[in-house]
Amino acid sequence: MMSNNDYTPPAVWKWEKEDGSKFSAINRPTAGAREQKTLPVGEHDFQLYSMATPNGQKVTIMFEELLAAGIDAADYDAWPVAIGDGEQFTSGFVEVNPNSKIPALMDHSGDKPVRLFESGSILQHLAEKFDAFLPSDPQARIECRNWLFWQVGSGPYLGGGFGHFYAYAPYKMQYPIDRFTMETKRQLDVLDKHLADNAYMAGEEYSIADMAIWPWYGNLVLGKLYDAAEFLQVEDYTYLLAWAKRIAERPAVKRGIIVNRFFGDGPQLAERHSAEDIDKALD
Amino acid sequence: MMSNNDYTPPAVWKWEKEDGSKFSAINRPTAGAREQKTLPVGEHDFQLYSMATPNGQKVTIMFEELLAAGIDAADYDAWPVAIGDGEQFTSGFVEVNPNSKIPALMDHSGDKPVRLFESGSILQHLAEKFDAFLPSDPQARIECRNWLFWQVGSGPYLGGGFGHFYAYAPYKMQYPIDRFTMETKRQLDVLDKHLADNAYMAGEEYSIADMAIWPWYGNLVLGKLYDAAEFLQVEDYTYLLAWAKRIAERPAVKRGIIVNRFFGDGPQLAERHSAEDIDKALD
Repeated sequence: MMSNNDYTPPAVWKWEKEDGSKFSAINRPTAGAREQKTLPVGEHDFQLYSMATPNGQKVTIMFEELLAAGIDAADYDAWPVAIGDGEQFTSGFVEVNPNSKIPALMDHSGDKPVRLFESGSILQHLAEKFDAFLPSDPQARIECRNWLFWQVGSGPYLGGGFGHFYAYAPYKMQYPIDRFTMETKRQLDVLDKHLADNAYMAGEEYSIADMAIWPWYGNLVLGKLYDAAEFLQVEDYTYLLAWAKRIAERPAVKRGIIVNRFFGDGPQLAERHSAEDIDKALD
Repeated sequence: MMSNNDYTPPAVWKWEKEDGSKFSAINRPTAGAREQKTLPVGEHDFQLYSMATPNGQKVTIMFEELLAAGIDAADYDAWPVAIGDGEQFTSGFVEVNPNSKIPALMDHSGDKPVRLFESGSILQHLAEKFDAFLPSDPQARIECRNWLFWQVGSGPYLGGGFGHFYAYAPYKMQYPIDRFTMETKRQLDVLDKHLADNAYMAGEEYSIADMAIWPWYGNLVLGKLYDAAEFLQVEDYTYLLAWAKRIAERPAVKRGIIVNRFFGDGPQLAERHSAEDIDKALD
């Protein structure tokens, strides 16, 4: 066992502003707006404020799947929120999501506008509203929800745990890396074993559970997250990998993943207001 | 900035069995059953397999609230799962929850038995089934779901992050403690600001959002989790603290929190099969 007992926490924690990590200039121990600024609003019923991180991609994939299924009422405006620049702390954004995380959505399709935050809540809302990408069988519907919540509760160990300590922290710490790698591999094995017996997470039908899980665990095993494919030996998870590849080939997924993408390699589309915006970006 | 660059991760991660942390004998990088053993089954429609951690308490509070509201059909058997002894890795448990986490629930009330896992999924299922503890107003209903998902996605930073590194890790590491303390305090501030304007998380009505949030954040500010009240200066979050105290006084909460509790101080009730079991334990 590694020993490193040279730190004793104080009785009362005090914030030290700069810790050297990638997002230290942005993160604070307080909530709320940091500047007065309203959000832009487009013409569609759905106004999405987001960025093409895995949590953002869940929702843009869902919108594109709805549109690909012929549900024209799901058309949307997607506005970029540069979380590295702190745009999630404007007064306008905080009004939609007091937790200052992307994605955040305003739905103007009903009698009154309604705010939605948390990707899982947004996926459920859209799925129920349009009765789409929820299994029709009652048991499968419950299974869909089990796995949707599984992703929301498990993802932080992958993103805020493994991803942070493996890729973003200012120096490499063995204990946290080991802890979160073990949990990430356990989660990959949970998925792999489930997908050995099921075509999709909720059974035979592609659903919002797949849309929630794919941007995190699909991208991870496809080598598109944290550059960790070798470290995690992702090729061991053969059923998960096959599922990830199958979903990556869906036209709506190829469209959804580039929306609110204004970083990295490949096609980008900072804001999306029509199908043609995506057509052009992918051209 | 603290520097500690003496660790370089290997190209391929390898599991080192014992890391000295509290649960190192239990945690593994693989999923699935470790021993063949069936689960006990009682007489009620609902068979809960759990332990009175915050995630377990969410569900036992919900069952007790349903019963307190006169919904007799919500009666349940609650069976203990000693996660420190690895009872979540039996074949019977894994059949109900392939993720090997408590709480897990079998619902025999419908045409076919159905498995439920993830506390958020269980809360939603019970709330919808009995049309209870969901706000009737459509906007408040969506807000309830936003906050339910908020808890599921935020809780891991409190439990798997702050709690682990502050209370359970084999030695104290400053960087992870600072990282997860900052996030925990930010979350406490999110809740405090919201509860400054709202009696309950979804507005005027007590709902499953409160039941999800209270066992984690309520217990934390009441000094009942990780012994961290002074460290986090919880008395600064006055609205959150008032809400936490108000909910702690609910009779159903006092009943629910002791179910599947077979550790620590105070009343315990390893298994629960009737209202009288709780009456006796609280006597």
